[in-house]
Amino acid sequence: MTGDFAPFTADDYRARMRHAARAAAGAGFAGLLVAPGPDLVWLTGYAPPAATERLTLLVLVPGADPVLVVPKLEAGDAEKAAGGPALTLRDWTDGTSPYAVTAPLLDARGRYAVSDDAWALHLLGLQRELPESAYVSFSDGLPMLRAVKDDAELARLAAAGAAADAAYEEIRNARFAGRKESDVAADLAALLRRFGHSQVDFTVVGSGPNGANPHHEAGERVIREGDMVVLDFGGLVHGYGSDTTRTVHVGEPTAEEREIHDVVRAAQEAGFRAVRPGAACQEVDRAARRVIADAGYGEYFIHRTGHGIGTTTHEPPYMIEGEEQPLVPGMCFSVEPGIYLPGRFGVRIEDIVTVTGSGGRRLNDTAREMAIVS
Amino acid sequence: MTGDFAPFTADDYRARMRHAARAAAGAGFAGLLVAPGPDLVWLTGYAPPAATERLTLLVLVPGADPVLVVPKLEAGDAEKAAGGPALTLRDWTDGTSPYAVTAPLLDARGRYAVSDDAWALHLLGLQRELPESAYVSFSDGLPMLRAVKDDAELARLAAAGAAADAAYEEIRNARFAGRKESDVAADLAALLRRFGHSQVDFTVVGSGPNGANPHHEAGERVIREGDMVVLDFGGLVHGYGSDTTRTVHVGEPTAEEREIHDVVRAAQEAGFRAVRPGAACQEVDRAARRVIADAGYGEYFIHRTGHGIGTTTHEPPYMIEGEEQPLVPGMCFSVEPGIYLPGRFGVRIEDIVTVTGSGGRRLNDTAREMAIVS
Repeated sequence: MTGDFAPFTADDYRARMRHAARAAAGAGFAGLLVAPGPDLVWLTGYAPPAATERLTLLVLVPGADPVLVVPKLEAGDAEKAAGGPALTLRDWTDGTSPYAVTAPLLDARGRYAVSDDAWALHLLGLQRELPESAYVSFSDGLPMLRAVKDDAELARLAAAGAAADAAYEEIRNARFAGRKESDVAADLAALLRRFGHSQVDFTVVGSGPNGANPHHEAGERVIREGDMVVLDFGGLVHGYGSDTTRTVHVGEPTAEEREIHDVVRAAQEAGFRAVRPGAACQEVDRAARRVIADAGYGEYFIHRTGHGIGTTTHEPPYMIEGEEQPLVPGMCFSVEPGIYLPGRFGVRIEDIVTVTGSGGRRLNDTAREMAIVS
Repeated sequence: MTGDFAPFTADDYRARMRHAARAAAGAGFAGLLVAPGPDLVWLTGYAPPAATERLTLLVLVPGADPVLVVPKLEAGDAEKAAGGPALTLRDWTDGTSPYAVTAPLLDARGRYAVSDDAWALHLLGLQRELPESAYVSFSDGLPMLRAVKDDAELARLAAAGAAADAAYEEIRNARFAGRKESDVAADLAALLRRFGHSQVDFTVVGSGPNGANPHHEAGERVIREGDMVVLDFGGLVHGYGSDTTRTVHVGEPTAEEREIHDVVRAAQEAGFRAVRPGAACQEVDRAARRVIADAGYGEYFIHRTGHGIGTTTHEPPYMIEGEEQPLVPGMCFSVEPGIYLPGRFGVRIEDIVTVTGSGGRRLNDTAREMAIVS
């Protein structure tokens, strides 16, 4: 279902690291400091067993070979990573200072961009070792580093979207009434895996009043005839994320429920239509929000319209008021407006959308009309 | 098997937060900044769905009410946490600056201790908002904050140790020869759950040469007659960690294998015997290391002797050369020396030990002699 993809090679990672070093130089940084997590996976294919108090840090300096500072115990694992051949390892041993090992790789007065999720422990260690150096988070200094996907990445994101869509087509036919949210969530997780997900990150089943809390996951509530049910689910396929939402109804909806679902669907369509190269991210948010506000539900749309997706399911660019970043072909993000009536129900509709040369292309394409489930 | 434990209450968390604020004042800090993760769970019982780019931060200032800065979307979850009633929530909305919300809670020239695993993004956000403020990691500024366990915590750690021991007693009787490491690891995980673990964190099965890599987890290698096999496993029971290692042998060992196992066992015993109130952590490391060095294997013991354990399975205090922290009754940590012969095999023996009024008490107590498995 999700197709075959050749694994990324050391050359692929070499190219990404060159691209990143160039981007760093272009943004006026002396280099990039990359912590374990999605940034490091994207640049090197390497994921240590866990991010810990033991420093692992990729030092990318324009014009120099990439160096991975790594605990001696984990050097063997790092060497074996797909990007390992593109890295020079600099290991350090328990009881010595990893910051003293890192400092000679840096310009003592340099300004570096550092992974958002680097540990404060490690950032403070570097700040102490090199008090004249300066640091800016990737989010602030180089937010779009991973935002523009190349063809190989887009193919994986499309496969992830198709796998999530296949899971939705199946779950529509499942029994809802009389079952717990957590049971439907377990079905969804199994379907995501069956259709090719190697990892399931979330399976939100928000029935009735639980749907009005956009961060509700899935609980013990028993779904009833007459419930609106928000289904928001995703995970990883070949290392890239899926994330889609459909809101279904158990049995016949009321006129009000239909109206609200229609408003959200129109808002989602408007957000999607605002996607085109050069448009600012906030325009996507405004387009979706305007439809909901005009219908009189503005105060019930309480989150941003979307977030980027790639090797993680939440990353820049964010579709939010104030984000003036222009859209660039290859960017991928969610468009997911919603209306949440506290204590009653919620409706959200979400697709992943990628920017093309002339507009947007959806990577989720199941029917957005309200499905009636049993 | 693991007994019943009343959940910690808002009063328990209130007491922990008071204790922490007092410790902060004692160490000269204006307060503590606590990020999602084990510190926050320990102080409030609250774990957001995930640590993300959205700031969640507990601000603990001596003499003031604890304040939790939280994304508006997650405020409801935070309120429902066991420690929720002990917290004042200060929420912020997508599109506004969470650092601007946090800054008024802080002294603009204050010095704060911050969780090791706080995101660099958030630390940099605070440093930008309050350029005269200063930050020190918990590891450097207040490393022993969670290190001394009270009776309720010790009871949970003892239950976790007993559950891990029960898993070991069963796995000794399993078939090893002819099965993959990953199959034995799956058995171990199932046993840990059966005996009361709510979460399994690691199930290392290092057979033959794989045992010589202390960070090997479990792979596709088929275990053979004549293999030494390192079994290192643990997880959480009632929110507290287990972590124990035994090294078994498939069939009869050689004289050399016996000798090396005996050396590690003697080293582990020496490390355990060095545990007493007032001894420096490094004395535990030295005691274990000396036995191995005296036997001529010093260069093959390539890691520290131990790490603290509590709501996480790796935390201060560390049993390592250079750590002069005196042991205090109630501290809990591993004593786990090993010998690793590259390309051949490894041996490690590990117990969790707690400091008592007069010495140490093991929380793991299965036989440390080399078990012969089939």
